[in-house]
Amino acid sequence: MKKKRHAHSKKTGLPPGTLIHTGDVKTSQVTLTMFRYSAEQIEERTITSLDEIPSESENSILWLNIHGLHDPKIMAEIGLKFKLHPLVLEDILNTEQRPKVDVYDDYLYLVTRFFTYDSREMQINSEQISIILGEHIVLSFQERPTGSFDPLRERLRANKGLLRKSGADVLAYALLDMIVDKYFIMLEQISDDCEKLEDQLLHRPSNVVLQNIHKLKRETMDLRRAVWPLREIINSLVRNEFDFFQESTTLYLRDVYDHSIHFIESLESLRDLLAGMLDIYLSSISNQVNKEVRILTVVTMLFMPATLISGIFGMNFEHMPLLKDYWGFWIALAFMLLVAGGMGLHFWRRQWLSRH
Amino acid sequence: MKKKRHAHSKKTGLPPGTLIHTGDVKTSQVTLTMFRYSAEQIEERTITSLDEIPSESENSILWLNIHGLHDPKIMAEIGLKFKLHPLVLEDILNTEQRPKVDVYDDYLYLVTRFFTYDSREMQINSEQISIILGEHIVLSFQERPTGSFDPLRERLRANKGLLRKSGADVLAYALLDMIVDKYFIMLEQISDDCEKLEDQLLHRPSNVVLQNIHKLKRETMDLRRAVWPLREIINSLVRNEFDFFQESTTLYLRDVYDHSIHFIESLESLRDLLAGMLDIYLSSISNQVNKEVRILTVVTMLFMPATLISGIFGMNFEHMPLLKDYWGFWIALAFMLLVAGGMGLHFWRRQWLSRH
Amino acid sequence: MKKKRHAHSKKTGLPPGTLIHTGDVKTSQVTLTMFRYSAEQIEERTITSLDEIPSESENSILWLNIHGLHDPKIMAEIGLKFKLHPLVLEDILNTEQRPKVDVYDDYLYLVTRFFTYDSREMQINSEQISIILGEHIVLSFQERPTGSFDPLRERLRANKGLLRKSGADVLAYALLDMIVDKYFIMLEQISDDCEKLEDQLLHRPSNVVLQNIHKLKRETMDLRRAVWPLREIINSLVRNEFDFFQESTTLYLRDVYDHSIHFIESLESLRDLLAGMLDIYLSSISNQVNKEVRILTVVTMLFMPATLISGIFGMNFEHMPLLKDYWGFWIALAFMLLVAGGMGLHFWRRQWLSRH
Amino acid sequence: MKKKRHAHSKKTGLPPGTLIHTGDVKTSQVTLTMFRYSAEQIEERTITSLDEIPSESENSILWLNIHGLHDPKIMAEIGLKFKLHPLVLEDILNTEQRPKVDVYDDYLYLVTRFFTYDSREMQINSEQISIILGEHIVLSFQERPTGSFDPLRERLRANKGLLRKSGADVLAYALLDMIVDKYFIMLEQISDDCEKLEDQLLHRPSNVVLQNIHKLKRETMDLRRAVWPLREIINSLVRNEFDFFQESTTLYLRDVYDHSIHFIESLESLRDLLAGMLDIYLSSISNQVNKEVRILTVVTMLFMPATLISGIFGMNFEHMPLLKDYWGFWIALAFMLLVAGGMGLHFWRRQWLSRH
Amino acid sequence: MKKKRHAHSKKTGLPPGTLIHTGDVKTSQVTLTMFRYSAEQIEERTITSLDEIPSESENSILWLNIHGLHDPKIMAEIGLKFKLHPLVLEDILNTEQRPKVDVYDDYLYLVTRFFTYDSREMQINSEQISIILGEHIVLSFQERPTGSFDPLRERLRANKGLLRKSGADVLAYALLDMIVDKYFIMLEQISDDCEKLEDQLLHRPSNVVLQNIHKLKRETMDLRRAVWPLREIINSLVRNEFDFFQESTTLYLRDVYDHSIHFIESLESLRDLLAGMLDIYLSSISNQVNKEVRILTVVTMLFMPATLISGIFGMNFEHMPLLKDYWGFWIALAFMLLVAGGMGLHFWRRQWLSRH
Repeated sequence: MKKKRHAHSKKTGLPPGTLIHTGDVKTSQVTLTMFRYSAEQIEERTITSLDEIPSESENSILWLNIHGLHDPKIMAEIGLKFKLHPLVLEDILNTEQRPKVDVYDDYLYLVTRFFTYDSREMQINSEQISIILGEHIVLSFQERPTGSFDPLRERLRANKGLLRKSGADVLAYALLDMIVDKYFIMLEQISDDCEKLEDQLLHRPSNVVLQNIHKLKRETMDLRRAVWPLREIINSLVRNEFDFFQESTTLYLRDVYDHSIHFIESLESLRDLLAGMLDIYLSSISNQVNKEVRILTVVTMLFMPATLISGIFGMNFEHMPLLKDYWGFWIALAFMLLVAGGMGLHFWRRQWLSRH
Repeated sequence: MKKKRHAHSKKTGLPPGTLIHTGDVKTSQVTLTMFRYSAEQIEERTITSLDEIPSESENSILWLNIHGLHDPKIMAEIGLKFKLHPLVLEDILNTEQRPKVDVYDDYLYLVTRFFTYDSREMQINSEQISIILGEHIVLSFQERPTGSFDPLRERLRANKGLLRKSGADVLAYALLDMIVDKYFIMLEQISDDCEKLEDQLLHRPSNVVLQNIHKLKRETMDLRRAVWPLREIINSLVRNEFDFFQESTTLYLRDVYDHSIHFIESLESLRDLLAGMLDIYLSSISNQVNKEVRILTVVTMLFMPATLISGIFGMNFEHMPLLKDYWGFWIALAFMLLVAGGMGLHFWRRQWLSRH
Repeated sequence: MKKKRHAHSKKTGLPPGTLIHTGDVKTSQVTLTMFRYSAEQIEERTITSLDEIPSESENSILWLNIHGLHDPKIMAEIGLKFKLHPLVLEDILNTEQRPKVDVYDDYLYLVTRFFTYDSREMQINSEQISIILGEHIVLSFQERPTGSFDPLRERLRANKGLLRKSGADVLAYALLDMIVDKYFIMLEQISDDCEKLEDQLLHRPSNVVLQNIHKLKRETMDLRRAVWPLREIINSLVRNEFDFFQESTTLYLRDVYDHSIHFIESLESLRDLLAGMLDIYLSSISNQVNKEVRILTVVTMLFMPATLISGIFGMNFEHMPLLKDYWGFWIALAFMLLVAGGMGLHFWRRQWLSRH
Repeated sequence: MKKKRHAHSKKTGLPPGTLIHTGDVKTSQVTLTMFRYSAEQIEERTITSLDEIPSESENSILWLNIHGLHDPKIMAEIGLKFKLHPLVLEDILNTEQRPKVDVYDDYLYLVTRFFTYDSREMQINSEQISIILGEHIVLSFQERPTGSFDPLRERLRANKGLLRKSGADVLAYALLDMIVDKYFIMLEQISDDCEKLEDQLLHRPSNVVLQNIHKLKRETMDLRRAVWPLREIINSLVRNEFDFFQESTTLYLRDVYDHSIHFIESLESLRDLLAGMLDIYLSSISNQVNKEVRILTVVTMLFMPATLISGIFGMNFEHMPLLKDYWGFWIALAFMLLVAGGMGLHFWRRQWLSRH
Repeated sequence: MKKKRHAHSKKTGLPPGTLIHTGDVKTSQVTLTMFRYSAEQIEERTITSLDEIPSESENSILWLNIHGLHDPKIMAEIGLKFKLHPLVLEDILNTEQRPKVDVYDDYLYLVTRFFTYDSREMQINSEQISIILGEHIVLSFQERPTGSFDPLRERLRANKGLLRKSGADVLAYALLDMIVDKYFIMLEQISDDCEKLEDQLLHRPSNVVLQNIHKLKRETMDLRRAVWPLREIINSLVRNEFDFFQESTTLYLRDVYDHSIHFIESLESLRDLLAGMLDIYLSSISNQVNKEVRILTVVTMLFMPATLISGIFGMNFEHMPLLKDYWGFWIALAFMLLVAGGMGLHFWRRQWLSRH
């Protein structure tokens, strides 16, 4: 996971509640999109001034989505307009939060994370998504436009399903559901890379593959740590500890909870796979050493006896057998070949060179 | 375990409650089998239309088993007929669920998994079995006909044991019992493959064996993760948290609970075995390297001195001893043999070549 | 631990409560031994028919011990006589149970295991001992006669200690105490084998030793898993959750509980020891490779320079120094010895060959 | 982490409550700095005698910061003045405490630790900071002046934020917040060193790098153990178990709690990174051995055949082919080159030497 | 830790409450030392008969310390005199207990362990210390005189601190405090040995060092297991579950609790250190192999080409260049040196031989 460890030092020593955007600026412009709907009608608008937002009403649900968090001024205005606690605003801007849920008198504040996988760098990038759920209002804050909520907008416009007929809690659930569903898309991409690595491991093992396996394993562990608290949060919503969700909605949240557990288990399965790949890599190196040594041994055993024989007949004794024989040279040569061939046959029989 | 990780992405962005069958279509036709029984009489029928199902009655138990889940239309009809919550229908069709139990007003919804082991691929395949338990009704949903419940049908027909005399909860228990019992059959198959691998490991260690050990270990871990929640679920049934089981039936459920724990422990024992096999494989490679190097060393030590001696008597000095001697050549040869023989004896005494 | 994984498949598909003995038949005959005692008198009898058993009485304690469980007919009779639940009878016969405690209205049902260690096979065999504790009655079921309870019988006959003066709960405690005490005898045997392995590891490391270490480690882990639930059970008895033990007896049970924890900790200590032995084995192989390579290097360094020198003086140049010199040959030889000696000295100084 | 394990033995056998400063003397002089403030006014003073401290008043908050703890006499006076329990004084002086919170009737006693990282020694030094929170008073004890609280002093003087308007609990929170914020600065330094090690590992792997990785890993684990209880403490403050913090302040403490968890997770991520580096180091050595053996094999295979050929034509047979041929020598030489070249081509094609 | 696993088998089959001393007899004589004190006066006596002990009184505290437990008769007398439960007496004599606390009506029974480290054997020896705390009485049982409580006696005599003015619970606390404090002295000795091993590892790695590391690691783990329950016990005393300690004393016990946690964490830190040393050892062997192979390769590459050249000029062709040249021999020799020197330069440049 991309390290953003300078986020905290930026803020060290400042009083709490100071609005500073920590993290990279991921979009150049702050965009506010408003949906206002009831079962009967729907209004969709991109807003430039907060004054355009109608006051809260019992008859309709207001969903305000904010892309881009780097302008503290607009954030402060939003905080004022919707009476958000300074700490909430600070947490929205501090985009390195762990998933959490904080309950206030009038609203629930949810921090979740959205992950995208960069296959080229084998790196998981993450983005913070904050959701505020009031009685008739849902605010969602994203670091940049990702189009992740587009299917939901489509559903709102088309008035499919129960969404338009239900309260703000169902909208918040739908957002959560969408976020967790996207996790599985990322998981597939990581799994694909895993398979590629496995393939490379078997056919072209190298130190680069090893480093990539380690990298992916670390990313997977970091991801697990980042998603783990989300599981806990959704569970607390299912148990309806905070009373912001209706009983019927918690049934649906239970589904999201199941998905989050499923996701974490898939990550653990992935980690097992990667750990196994490390073992295979290490043993394949040992195997390689074994093979090299075997070749060296075979070569040595083939040539050393022949060299000795040639040395023997190269000695300068006056009285030596065969030397004056017409076929002497060829007999010596044949003897060399015989010894080498015998050894070769021996190896071939024991399948020394093909075994690995 | 076979990866079905595309299941989730299929559904991303759809409203909850949308009935889409995720997973492979495992049978070509949807088959509904109905049992209707009381202590005195029993009726067994394969149904083509839902209208054939008699209305619920206090005097008899209705068991409807459905094979094949890929036709959302029939599923929707069943949902309507038995007043199932849209989420339950969705979960039945989404065949990648973890085991879970959901309680509704009129029925209990149980998701369990059925595992089969493909020895050739060393792969565990799994199939979702959903069970719905009402007051006088049990619905069971399977992805394809497996014949797993045949002994139960036999028992119903033969009116053996207490089954016919008991309520729907005993039937649900019997289904669960049957499912968990089948786990042990799979466990035996895996254990057999484990033993085969152990045998190969000792006699023909190779990278393929290593990969198979890893594969089996991973499958075992995945299986453990998949069965773990079932244990929890049965425990909650034993504690009778949901009031759908009679006190006397929970005594029997306790038995299923014991079996599920036994199964998980057997998996852990298997994992220990496989982990030990990995260690043995790695050490056997190191042993192999050791042996190769030893052979190389012995060969070098046998031939190098002899080669040196032959080299010495091959030098062109005018004044050299032995050269003109009649027995000189044979003395040199004998000396070579002596040195080599002495070394050989030394090795033989230290049992260098036989030790491993 | 000896695998008995076919136990479950034997029963698959049978209705619950079917009495089938799963496991090996370990004794050829079913033997029933009865003790009936009070503080004043004691009666000891081997029984052939259940009718010989006197009816329960408030004034005396009845202890019935059954060896051999393979005759379902006798078991069914016992069940009838003492009004045991069918599931209890089934569990007694199914000798692959994990330790557990089940509470019924009139009695407590305890499953424990008895372990014996087969040093030759390095294998732990286990046997199920079921104990039923009623108000004035204790039933104990063993797979075969082991003589494990003989000291207890002796104590009953001799009227030593408080046993005869106390209730049935004290007898049940005494049985448990005896079982746990025997665990330590087995532990000593395993520890002895461990020490033998450690000895072999240091003096004759081989793949067989490695496999034995792994086997013992696995047995130890399996044993730990098998004893773990017993600890939990005794703890629940100490907390007196079931009201079958008197307050004063729970004090003694606390002692058994301490022993069971002590036993589990000893197993963990043993596992640490065995894991360390694996590490030592692996590193000793690497050390061995290191030593071999060093010898090879030394031999090569001793002979290669000398061989080169002999080769140089074997060249056929017309004008070469020393060749015609009377002492030429000896000077060359001395030079060879000098180089080899210098290298040897160098190695000896760096203690290359003795270091390991 | 620097070992200060002699701290305890210094005190062994002394009665509890004896004031002895354990740990190194880190500053030569004890300095007392007093802040006394309300929303309207602020007074800042360095104090030489405890008499200068005004008595507690409801209208203003008193913050007394003490640098240097090695003078038991002054500490005893402070204890007397603020009615601190002897054990609290002892704990303040015994600077090897784990983080903890102790509640007394009139005040809360918090022990936290401050860490600095010495990059040259790859060592984490730690310093104990004790905080006492009364109703209108905060005492903070540091081993030496670190300037860590300077931004807070600045904020007090400038009357920025809510600090001056709030109670003593907010000041205590601000101190805690400052301490935890500093943790992240240290984390960045460790991460930087980690990256340096990773770089060295890939380009110049050596035993020194290995030892450094191990050292950093150990320091990271020690740090985790040292911070872990702090997390627990802050959590207990958030749950407001002790009633010394106002409801509104606990909202802010929740933030500190999140930071402490974030910090611990970062440490775990770091540990994963370092563990992976160890694996890479070990496998890179194996790779190195593999490469060496391959070079040796290639050299042997290139020269051995040529040497044999030269040996063959060095034999002293009377009848040998080529010897008298004018081109004989060059033919033999060409043959040698051919064999060596063929082998070289073979290796080059299999990319033996470039692969790693 | 020294194995005393025969302790249990000694007692197998005996009725509970049988007084048998298990463990080695560590002192030849049983010594009873009595302290009887109040704030005003103190009486110290070595007792030969139990009759010398005055009856319990509200005005003074009685501390009876017993060295040597091998005389069951005296123990039985003490049991009678102080009305101890038979199980307590049995536990005192059975010196292989885990730390535990048992509460009886009139007294609290504490089992703790005292550890000494034998640096020569790298072995931790342990001794059981039993403490019985009544209302005005403290009994302490030690296996042999260790002088561990001498500072406490000194403090009693000198009437320093609050000890004489407080009740029996403070004396019990003081004993516990003394025991835990001694743990840290042992910890320092182990740490010293650890450092010695680390030193040996870097300068003279050998299999003996490896075995010592393993031994120390195992001892550390055993120690951790032995101290772990003590932590739990002290915690239960702090929570004052048993009502034998006054509220003010539990504050002091909290201190002992902190120390015990600190001790356990130090042990874990030590284990990390030793685990790291194992890794370093294994990698240093691999490094060693690498170095050996490199030397072999270098030697081979230096001498093989020269040997080939000498072989070439040793061939018996009639027409060979240089042979008749006056400088031929020297040119050949120069060529050999050139090749060897070139290789040597190549290695030197790549720092092959110095790198490790």
